[in-house]
Amino acid sequence: MTVEATFQRRVSRWGIFELVLPGPVDSAAFSDPGFGATFARGHRTIRCDGFYDGDGRYVVRLMPDAEGEMSFLTWGRAQQLDGVTGSFVVDAPSTGVHGPVRVAHGTHFAYADGVPYRELGTTCYAWTHQGDAIEERTLATLADAPFNKIRMCIFPKDYAYNKNEPERYPYERGTDGLWDFARFNPAYFTHLEQRLAQLAALGIEADLILFHPYDRWGFSRMPADADDRYLRYVVSRLSAFRNVWWSLANEFDLMTSKTESDWDRFFRIIQALDSVQHPRSIHNCRRFYDHSKAWVTHCSIQRSDVERTREWREQYSKPVVIDECCYEGDIPQRWGDITAEEMVRRFWETTVRGGYCGHGETYADPDDVLWWSKGGVLKGHSPARLALLREVLASAPATGLDPLDGIVKHGFPCAGRIGEYYLTYTGPHQPRAISLSLPSETSFDVDVIDTWAMTIARVPGSHRGQCTVELPGRPYIAVRARRST
Amino acid sequence: MTVEATFQRRVSRWGIFELVLPGPVDSAAFSDPGFGATFARGHRTIRCDGFYDGDGRYVVRLMPDAEGEMSFLTWGRAQQLDGVTGSFVVDAPSTGVHGPVRVAHGTHFAYADGVPYRELGTTCYAWTHQGDAIEERTLATLADAPFNKIRMCIFPKDYAYNKNEPERYPYERGTDGLWDFARFNPAYFTHLEQRLAQLAALGIEADLILFHPYDRWGFSRMPADADDRYLRYVVSRLSAFRNVWWSLANEFDLMTSKTESDWDRFFRIIQALDSVQHPRSIHNCRRFYDHSKAWVTHCSIQRSDVERTREWREQYSKPVVIDECCYEGDIPQRWGDITAEEMVRRFWETTVRGGYCGHGETYADPDDVLWWSKGGVLKGHSPARLALLREVLASAPATGLDPLDGIVKHGFPCAGRIGEYYLTYTGPHQPRAISLSLPSETSFDVDVIDTWAMTIARVPGSHRGQCTVELPGRPYIAVRARRST
Repeated sequence: MTVEATFQRRVSRWGIFELVLPGPVDSAAFSDPGFGATFARGHRTIRCDGFYDGDGRYVVRLMPDAEGEMSFLTWGRAQQLDGVTGSFVVDAPSTGVHGPVRVAHGTHFAYADGVPYRELGTTCYAWTHQGDAIEERTLATLADAPFNKIRMCIFPKDYAYNKNEPERYPYERGTDGLWDFARFNPAYFTHLEQRLAQLAALGIEADLILFHPYDRWGFSRMPADADDRYLRYVVSRLSAFRNVWWSLANEFDLMTSKTESDWDRFFRIIQALDSVQHPRSIHNCRRFYDHSKAWVTHCSIQRSDVERTREWREQYSKPVVIDECCYEGDIPQRWGDITAEEMVRRFWETTVRGGYCGHGETYADPDDVLWWSKGGVLKGHSPARLALLREVLASAPATGLDPLDGIVKHGFPCAGRIGEYYLTYTGPHQPRAISLSLPSETSFDVDVIDTWAMTIARVPGSHRGQCTVELPGRPYIAVRARRST
Repeated sequence: MTVEATFQRRVSRWGIFELVLPGPVDSAAFSDPGFGATFARGHRTIRCDGFYDGDGRYVVRLMPDAEGEMSFLTWGRAQQLDGVTGSFVVDAPSTGVHGPVRVAHGTHFAYADGVPYRELGTTCYAWTHQGDAIEERTLATLADAPFNKIRMCIFPKDYAYNKNEPERYPYERGTDGLWDFARFNPAYFTHLEQRLAQLAALGIEADLILFHPYDRWGFSRMPADADDRYLRYVVSRLSAFRNVWWSLANEFDLMTSKTESDWDRFFRIIQALDSVQHPRSIHNCRRFYDHSKAWVTHCSIQRSDVERTREWREQYSKPVVIDECCYEGDIPQRWGDITAEEMVRRFWETTVRGGYCGHGETYADPDDVLWWSKGGVLKGHSPARLALLREVLASAPATGLDPLDGIVKHGFPCAGRIGEYYLTYTGPHQPRAISLSLPSETSFDVDVIDTWAMTIARVPGSHRGQCTVELPGRPYIAVRARRST
């Protein structure tokens, strides 16, 4: 029998190279494919575990991160999977592709090519479990929305407003009718991968939530060996998608069947297997996981008191992403009913303290299609304002906004970069003026930004040193000073 | 020479009994009058220090706290002040007089006759230093305002918007032109006493701030013996006013010339001398004084994060009064420019966590008459809403609102009294419904209170057990359930 390797001869940088080999039809290979490849380019090699895609298909994927020719050499327990070689060319990246996101400048993010990534996320936990009609509506909504990250669960979700069965499950059932945690469902993952690719095309990072407590199927209470197998399968399959982030859990502290050492182990498994080293985090309900542990790349936080952003930055010296600060909406749950004004305020309060905030929307719906869980359409008034925030961030310093003291009088929070850029925000305060201590040797352009009315007004003239900026006497005003060019 | 004692033969309970004796004209008596009286009624005696009022007038005051006949016997270093006796009758209190306020039910307040006192304070730091025209305007404003406490300084204030010299000072100048901290100015105190009595007539407690850092005269940096002498003089003169509270400082932690042991000593001096045992507190800028010390009757707090009220209640097991949570206004200072919506929200957030909040107003004024400092008129939109809060509190349980768990679903804060009264509040949340777990054996009347629109709407019917209350889908809504009568 001739081994027929299927793979691309050309792939663009930060795209997905995929090698498919035929091998034994054996569902035990889901647990342990005994297969992988070592990729080489010059003196550099990258070792990637493969995965079993069912029907005798053995796959290994790579996200190539440099241009030029690469070769591969497989290893395999089955003879026909072992020692297969080949080569391919990595071309320049496709237009608009900047590579995976990484932590940069200490407490911020950047794409692999150095272009800054200003996180502005939303939340649709179970959007890929809703069927094509709603899922495509979600993608269309995202195409027009300001968000560049989405929090989404791999496992289906069982919770208020989300009681429908998903079309597909990550596992097959055994002959006993129970879920077989050793047998993955390739169709489930193929569908998820289609959605990941569509998000990537929209420039949206997929913050993949690996575990969560809202479960009626048993996926939150699998034995440890099944958890580990699941992580290895997911990382082997999905890490070649440049827009993947690993969120170990939604509300890890509500998952009573997992211990602290389970979470530690999960982090280490991912860290060891993921050749791209995507961002890794874990999201809390009440108590924080210890984000200072080395395998945590950034803090993923659920908290309403976003004014503490700076404290957390200082505590962990990592990017602070308040992934959940409550959702804009009107459902009875306290976490799902803040006003658009409050949602926008929390984003800005976080921003001017050097952090990143997250959106979600929970307006009651006759069909129970709430954005935060199922996606669909956005009904709220915050996204338009968050688009303005995104526009403001787009011209902020590439190294990110860090808290700055002594710039704005009276203790208004300020973030920016010394000598270059300063951003402050009034929140529920409505001063008729705000005083800035700008460097005296440089000229600055100053803008008054009404973050709610969505206006940016240039203050006439050029500014330096001590200056007082008149404000409209309304809340929710930002003031920006940028070095004149 | 015949000693002529001047005193009332009849005084009403919780009024001011005043005995005046002529004695040596000697300004040294300001520091040490060597004079006082022991009051007796049946087996009970109350010893009160006297004070020197200048011009040979020696005065001792008592706030009688029980009806019936009382006698007095003076002691004095000067012969004509010693051994003077007399008696008088204490009548029933005047209409509407309930006596001094005390801590009651652990974390709340009540008047001496048991009538609950629901603190709802405002702030006019230097209002008694502004001259009669403004001061009378302030009193007229207070007569129509919802406040039942006012924070006010004894010493004049030097600060932004408050640079005018006062008409009177607590001290006389010496022949060297410097303040003589051993020689009090009786006219200053007579004026202050007039204002205290006017506040009492309006049912307003005077939270007298004894020290503060905003000073250009040296009153904040007196030597220790002058501080102690000042406290003894003030307490001897003013403690008979039933509406006095002792606030040791505004922003004690900004007074760099005082140490922790100074503040401890000040508390103990007051505690020892004050025969009424008026409420005692101390107000912070940044760090808290240790409110758990025995001489602190309640926590006086400056903080914006009023959502921590319950935490402070639990930490100190005393009433929590957030005397400064920022002020409604539009001046550039961050502490003086929150919206009326935010001010009202902070009051309600504090209330439904079992605490009390404080008001102040700082709208810029062409004549620099800002309510928070000088009094005058109120321009803001919060007082009308705080009047609604006062109305709501008026029918709350006499034992106060204590935090209650398990009543309101989804973690909305709730305070009240089990089986009787429940109050919750949405703040920036806008749920279309809220779920209460009321006792199933009792019927409740339920009201939806729009704290901003100032409406109270009774939900039709009688309610018990699990019930869902429809809400208008706007922020700032309170829901009240009261046991049906």
